[in-house]
Amino acid sequence: MKRENRLVRWIWWAVVVTALFLLGFSIGWFAKRSNTTTENHEASSKYLEEFLDEMQTDQIREHLRKLTRLPHLAGTEQNLKYAEQIMKEWQDFGLDSVEMVPYDILLSYPNKSQPNYISILDHIGNEVFNTSLAEPAPQGYEDISDIVPPYSAYSPKGHPQGDLVYVNYGRTEDFFQLEREMGINVTGKIVIARYGKIFRGNKVKNAMLAGAKGVILFSDPADYWAAGVQPYPDGWNLPGGGAQRGNVLNLNGAGDPLTPGYPAKEYTYRLDPEEGVGLPKIPVHPIGFHDAIHLLKNMGGQIPPNNWKGALNVSYKTGPGFTEGFRSHKVRMNIHSNNQVTRVYNVIGKIRGALEPDRYVILGGHRDAWVFGGIDPMSGAAVVHETVRSAGKLLKKGWRPRRTVIFASWDAEEFGLLGSTEWAEDNARLLQERAVAYINADSAIEGMYTLRVDCTPSLHTLVYNLTKQIASPEEGEDGVSLYESWHKRDNWTNDRDAPRISKLGSGSDFEAYFIRLGIAAGRARYTKNKKTERYSSYPVYHSVYETFEIVEKFYDPTFRRLRAVAQVRGGLIFLLADSQVLPLDATEYADSLRKYAQSIAHLAQANAEQMQTYKVSFEPLFSAVENFTAAARDFHERLQTLNTQDPLQVRMVNDQLMYLERAFIDPLGLPGRPFYRHVIFAPSSHNKYAGESFPGIYDALFDIENSADPEKAWREVKRQISIAAFTVHAAAVTLTPPA
Amino acid sequence: MKRENRLVRWIWWAVVVTALFLLGFSIGWFAKRSNTTTENHEASSKYLEEFLDEMQTDQIREHLRKLTRLPHLAGTEQNLKYAEQIMKEWQDFGLDSVEMVPYDILLSYPNKSQPNYISILDHIGNEVFNTSLAEPAPQGYEDISDIVPPYSAYSPKGHPQGDLVYVNYGRTEDFFQLEREMGINVTGKIVIARYGKIFRGNKVKNAMLAGAKGVILFSDPADYWAAGVQPYPDGWNLPGGGAQRGNVLNLNGAGDPLTPGYPAKEYTYRLDPEEGVGLPKIPVHPIGFHDAIHLLKNMGGQIPPNNWKGALNVSYKTGPGFTEGFRSHKVRMNIHSNNQVTRVYNVIGKIRGALEPDRYVILGGHRDAWVFGGIDPMSGAAVVHETVRSAGKLLKKGWRPRRTVIFASWDAEEFGLLGSTEWAEDNARLLQERAVAYINADSAIEGMYTLRVDCTPSLHTLVYNLTKQIASPEEGEDGVSLYESWHKRDNWTNDRDAPRISKLGSGSDFEAYFIRLGIAAGRARYTKNKKTERYSSYPVYHSVYETFEIVEKFYDPTFRRLRAVAQVRGGLIFLLADSQVLPLDATEYADSLRKYAQSIAHLAQANAEQMQTYKVSFEPLFSAVENFTAAARDFHERLQTLNTQDPLQVRMVNDQLMYLERAFIDPLGLPGRPFYRHVIFAPSSHNKYAGESFPGIYDALFDIENSADPEKAWREVKRQISIAAFTVHAAAVTLTPPA
Repeated sequence: MKRENRLVRWIWWAVVVTALFLLGFSIGWFAKRSNTTTENHEASSKYLEEFLDEMQTDQIREHLRKLTRLPHLAGTEQNLKYAEQIMKEWQDFGLDSVEMVPYDILLSYPNKSQPNYISILDHIGNEVFNTSLAEPAPQGYEDISDIVPPYSAYSPKGHPQGDLVYVNYGRTEDFFQLEREMGINVTGKIVIARYGKIFRGNKVKNAMLAGAKGVILFSDPADYWAAGVQPYPDGWNLPGGGAQRGNVLNLNGAGDPLTPGYPAKEYTYRLDPEEGVGLPKIPVHPIGFHDAIHLLKNMGGQIPPNNWKGALNVSYKTGPGFTEGFRSHKVRMNIHSNNQVTRVYNVIGKIRGALEPDRYVILGGHRDAWVFGGIDPMSGAAVVHETVRSAGKLLKKGWRPRRTVIFASWDAEEFGLLGSTEWAEDNARLLQERAVAYINADSAIEGMYTLRVDCTPSLHTLVYNLTKQIASPEEGEDGVSLYESWHKRDNWTNDRDAPRISKLGSGSDFEAYFIRLGIAAGRARYTKNKKTERYSSYPVYHSVYETFEIVEKFYDPTFRRLRAVAQVRGGLIFLLADSQVLPLDATEYADSLRKYAQSIAHLAQANAEQMQTYKVSFEPLFSAVENFTAAARDFHERLQTLNTQDPLQVRMVNDQLMYLERAFIDPLGLPGRPFYRHVIFAPSSHNKYAGESFPGIYDALFDIENSADPEKAWREVKRQISIAAFTVHAAAVTLTPPA
Repeated sequence: MKRENRLVRWIWWAVVVTALFLLGFSIGWFAKRSNTTTENHEASSKYLEEFLDEMQTDQIREHLRKLTRLPHLAGTEQNLKYAEQIMKEWQDFGLDSVEMVPYDILLSYPNKSQPNYISILDHIGNEVFNTSLAEPAPQGYEDISDIVPPYSAYSPKGHPQGDLVYVNYGRTEDFFQLEREMGINVTGKIVIARYGKIFRGNKVKNAMLAGAKGVILFSDPADYWAAGVQPYPDGWNLPGGGAQRGNVLNLNGAGDPLTPGYPAKEYTYRLDPEEGVGLPKIPVHPIGFHDAIHLLKNMGGQIPPNNWKGALNVSYKTGPGFTEGFRSHKVRMNIHSNNQVTRVYNVIGKIRGALEPDRYVILGGHRDAWVFGGIDPMSGAAVVHETVRSAGKLLKKGWRPRRTVIFASWDAEEFGLLGSTEWAEDNARLLQERAVAYINADSAIEGMYTLRVDCTPSLHTLVYNLTKQIASPEEGEDGVSLYESWHKRDNWTNDRDAPRISKLGSGSDFEAYFIRLGIAAGRARYTKNKKTERYSSYPVYHSVYETFEIVEKFYDPTFRRLRAVAQVRGGLIFLLADSQVLPLDATEYADSLRKYAQSIAHLAQANAEQMQTYKVSFEPLFSAVENFTAAARDFHERLQTLNTQDPLQVRMVNDQLMYLERAFIDPLGLPGRPFYRHVIFAPSSHNKYAGESFPGIYDALFDIENSADPEKAWREVKRQISIAAFTVHAAAVTLTPPA
C-alpha cells in the first residue's frame, strides 16, 4: 500500500511537473510570438469601427469653415498660414511627426497693376467692349482683398489681335471637324472655346497645334448650369459674371516646369523660363458667359453643327470674323500675367508603423485654392483633417498601425499638381521601395447623388468591403450601407452587378504616385448623377463662388456626405496600413486587363483590313493576359495556406502585392511622355482628366486611318502591343513563387 | 513543527512550480524563436569553410578541359551543346532548378563563301597584297573546323577603297591631335588604328565621327607582346598571324540592337536592321601584325609623335597615302559579313533560399567564346562550374542558404553582353525589387601576378574580409592569405593601406545589372603586374590561341590561381546569400563618393576662371556627400544595436542595404545614354572598358575649353552637378530610419 501510495504520488508529481512545464512552454511560445512579431491584430477591426465612428459631421463643418475664410492661392502668405495651422493641429491631434516641406517652383499670377482683359475693337482700333476685370464678390465676402481675378495660369504676356473663330470645346475632334469638314483654318486667328468635356490645357495645346495666336475660354450655361437651379447665392449654378480659373499647362506629369524629373530645391538646376516644360506659347484668358455673349453674338462664318451650339441666346457662328456691319471688328487680348519662381509648402505628417515602419500608406490632398476653395479642395482638406483627428484619438487609446501612415497637405496643385509631384520626385526612391498605396483627397464633393470611386483594379475588393461597413449618408436610408446606397444609384450594369468603379485619369495629386511611380492609388468623392446631370464638373468650379456656404447650404447641409467620404478615404488608409496581409486583389487586376485588352483590340478592328495588310495581331497581349490571370488566381490560392505566424512569409507575399502595381511601370515611359510610365493607365493624350487604358496602343491607333505613312504608323502599333504584352507577362511573373 | 513543515513543503512546492513554469516558458520562448524565424545561422561559417575547401584544382582543370575542346561561338550548335551539358551537370550537382532561357537576337558572322580581307591595290587596281583569311591553327587543333576567322562583328558589308591614315589607338585624344595639331582630315579615308588602351567600338565610333569610310584594326607587338616571352605555343605572346576578334558596337547598354529596352522574345517588336542601336555604319576589319606591316611600311604623310610609334620595324607615318614610288597604292577593304537574328541560350540555375527566397544573389558569367575560349570566358566558366559543384555538395550535407542563389551561364557576351542584358530586361522587375548583388564571372585569369577586384564600394569590406580567409595560390606562400599576397603586390598606396580595388567599367556581363538596374556588383580575377606589364589585356586575347593549353602551360599550371578566384567569387556569393545581415558597407560608399567628388571638382578647376564667370559651384555636391557620410555612419551605428531576433527588423535594415545601390539610379538615364542610369558610375564615353565616376559631370566637362557655346556648356555642367547632388542626397535619406 505504502509503495503504491508512493508510486501514485510520483505519478502525480510527474503529471504536475509535465503539465506545468507544458503550460510554461505554451505561454512562452505564444507570448514570444505576439511579442516579437505581433502578428495577431484581432483588435484591428474593433479599432476600425472606433476610427470610423470618431469622425464627426460637426468637426468636418468646423474644419471647412475655418479653412475657407480667406483666399489662399498657392505661393501666398495666407496659404502658408493655413499650412502652419494645419501643421500645428496635426501635432495637437497626436501625429508622431509633422513637417513643412518647401519647394521653389514656377507659379503664374496676374499683374496687379495691369489687369488682363479682352476687347472688341472697332474699325479704327478703339476698344468698344472690354471683358470684366473681376467676378462680382459673393455675399459676405465683399470686403475680402486678395481675390485673384479669373485668369489662365502660365499664359504668356501678349496682345494678340485679330479675327475670332469659335472652336466648340477645342477638342481634337472639334479641330478635325473644323479643318477637315468645314475647311476653316485657324492659323493666325484667336480662337474661342467653351469650357467643358476635356482639360483646358488640352484645348490650348490643340489651338496651338492648329496655329492659333490666342485662346479665349468661356463657360457656357449649357455646360455650367444645372437645370432648374438658381445661380449662386440662391442656388449652386454659376452666375453669368463668374469664370473658371485654371492652369493651361501641358506638363504630362513633369511637375515644376523648370525642374522636370527633380525636386525644385534651392540648389536645383532650373531651365531657362522659355524652355520650361508644358508652358503655352500663346495668350489664354477665361471669361464668364455675360462677357462671352458680347464676343459671340455678332460672329460671322458658318453655322456650326447642332452639337456645337451652347445655351446662350446667340447664333453660334464659327467665324472667322463678324457678321455684316461688324466687319471691321476684331478682338484683342490684353494679357500681362507673370511667371515667377515662388516658394510653396507641403505639410507632411506621419504615424510611425509599429511593425513595418518602412511600409508607407499615404493620404494626400491639396490645400491651395484659386480663391476660398469651399469645394476645391477644402471639402477634401477638411475630410483629411478629420481623418487625422480621428487617427490621433486612436493613437491615444493605444492603437498603432502595422505600417507607417503619411498624411500630406499639398501645395500648388492648381498650378499643375506641383507640390505633390515635387515631393514624389524628392522621395522617389523611398516611395518606389516602400509605398503600399496612395489615396487622394481632392474635393470630397462635386454633387449630391452618390459615391464616386476611381481606383486601380487591385483596390476594387477593398473598396466594396469597406463601403459595406459605412452607413449611407442619404436621408431616409437609415440602416442602409453606403455600398447599397451607391449600388442602387450607379450599378456597373454591363460588366458586373456592383457599384461602378472607374479608371483613374489625372488632374489631381495622385498622378505622380500612380502614373509615374506605379503605386496603387484611388480616390473617392460624392458626385452628381451622371445620367441626368450633363454639366461639366460642378457649376461654380474654380470661381469665387466656391465658398463654405455653397457646401453648407446646398451640397451637404448635414455634412453627412462629407463624413461618408471621410470614412471611405480614412477606412482605406486604415485597412491598407493595418491589415496583416495587404487587402489588394490581383484577380481584379486580371479581370480589368482582360476588359481593356478586348476593348483596345475591338478599337483596332475598325481598321481590320489594314491590320491584315500590316500583320498586326493582339494575340501576344491576350496570351499575356491569360498568363496574368492564372498567376493571379494561383497567388490568391496560395495565400489561403499562408503561414500567418511567419513574419517573413507574410512580408514576402505583401511585397508581391505591393510591387504588383510597380510591375506595370516601364522606365522608358510612353512615347513623348517620359513621366507617364504606367503601361496600363495614363491620362488621355486628348484630355488629361480622362484615363486611357493601354495608352501606348491607343495613341498609336489614334486617327491612324488618316496617317501619312500607314506602314510606319502600324509598325508603331505593333511596337506598342509588344511592349504591353511584355509588361503584362512580366507583371504575371512577379506573382509566381519567388524561387 | 508540523505546521512549519507544511509551510516549508508549500514554499518548496511553490518554488518548484515557479521554476518549472519558468523553465518551460524559457524553452518555449527560445524554441519558438529558432523555429519561426531560424535567425541564428551560427553554422554558416563552418559551411563557408567547407564550401571553399571543396573547390578543387583538378576539378577546375577538368571543367576547363571539357569546355574548351571545340569552338563555341554564340548562336552555333556547339555552344548550345555546351549549354545542355552545363544544364545537365548543374542538375546533377544538385541545384533546385536549372532552365535554358532562349532569346532571338541580332548576331553577326562572316560569310563562309566570301571571306573578309584587305587588299593593297596597284595603280590599275590590281590586288598586290591581301591580308590572311585565317590565323594559323594552334598545335593540336589543326583538324578542327568551325573556327571563325578574325572579324569585326557587326561590320556592315562594303568595299571602301582609298588612302590610309594611321590614327594611333583611335582614341578621342588621338583624333583631336590628328585634326587640331597635325591638320589631318580623315574624311573619306580609311583609317588604321592599333588595338589597345580603349574598347574597339569606341575607336570605330571616333573614326565614324571623324568621317572615315573604313577602319582597319591591328595588334601591334608594342601592345600585345610581353617582354621576353615567346609567341604561342612556346610562350603566351601573340603570334604575328594572330588577330583579335570582337564586336565593334556602340550599344551603351541597350542589349540586342533590335530590341532596346525589352527582351528579344518571339513576339517582341524588332527595329528595322538599319535602325539597330549602336551598329557601325562603316566597314571594320582586324588583322595581325604580320599583315599590318605590309600596310604600314610604305605609308606617307607626317612622322607622328613618338608615342604613336608601335614596335613594328616600319616607319609609322600618319598618312594619308603612301610614300614616293607607292603613290598610286590604295587600300581596299572587302567585307561580306552578315547580321542575322539568331537564337542564343542562357542557362539559369537556382538554389532556393531557406528564409528569404525572394532575395537573389547572382553569380553570372558567359559561355560563348570567339573560338575555344581557353581564357575568355571558360577560365571563368570553369570556376563557376566548380562553385556550383561545391554548393551542391553543401546542399547534400543539409545546408541551404538564407537567400536564393542564381547561377547564370550567359550566351552572346562577345556580341555586346547580349544574353545577360536580355535576361536583365526580361526580369527587370524581379531584379529591381529582389536582387541583393551580382558577381560577375568572365575570364578568371589574365595574368600571373595577383588578384584584381573591381566592385561597388559597398562590397570593399566584404572582399577584404573574405580574402583573409582564402589561401594565397602563389608558390612559396604557404600560410599566407590571399589578402596578404595581394596587398603586398598591389597596395592602394596614396589612398589607403590595403589592396587596391578599382571601379567597375564595362565590357562584361555585370553591365545591365550594375549600371542599368543599380544592383551592387563586383568581379574578381587573377591579373598581371600593371606597373611592369604594359601590354593591353593579355597577348592572345580573342585569338585562336586562347586554348586550354595556354592556361595549363603558362597561366596556371597548378590551377591554384583559378581555385583562388573560384573561392573569391564563390565566397562572395556564399556570404551575400547566407549572412543574416547583408555584408554591405555604406561607409565605404561614403568614402568613395568623397574621393570622386574631390576628383571631379579638381578636374573642373582646370577652368577655374570660366567656373567663376558662369557661377559653377560643387558645394551642393560636397554638402550631399557630407550628408551621405553622416547617414552611413549613423546607419552602421544603429546596426550595432539591431535586435537580430526580430525577423522584420533584420529584413528592414537588409532592405536598406540592398536598395542603397538602387538609390543611385536615375530613371532618366545619362544624357544620350538612356540605359546607363547609375549617377555615380558609368562606362567612360571614350572607352567602354573604363569606369567613370560622376559620368554626367565628367562628360559635360569634357573638352569644355573648346566648346562653341561655353555658356550652354557650363549650364549643362551645372545641371549635372545638380543631378549628382540630388542623387547623393536622396541615397543618404534611404539610410535614415524609415519613419
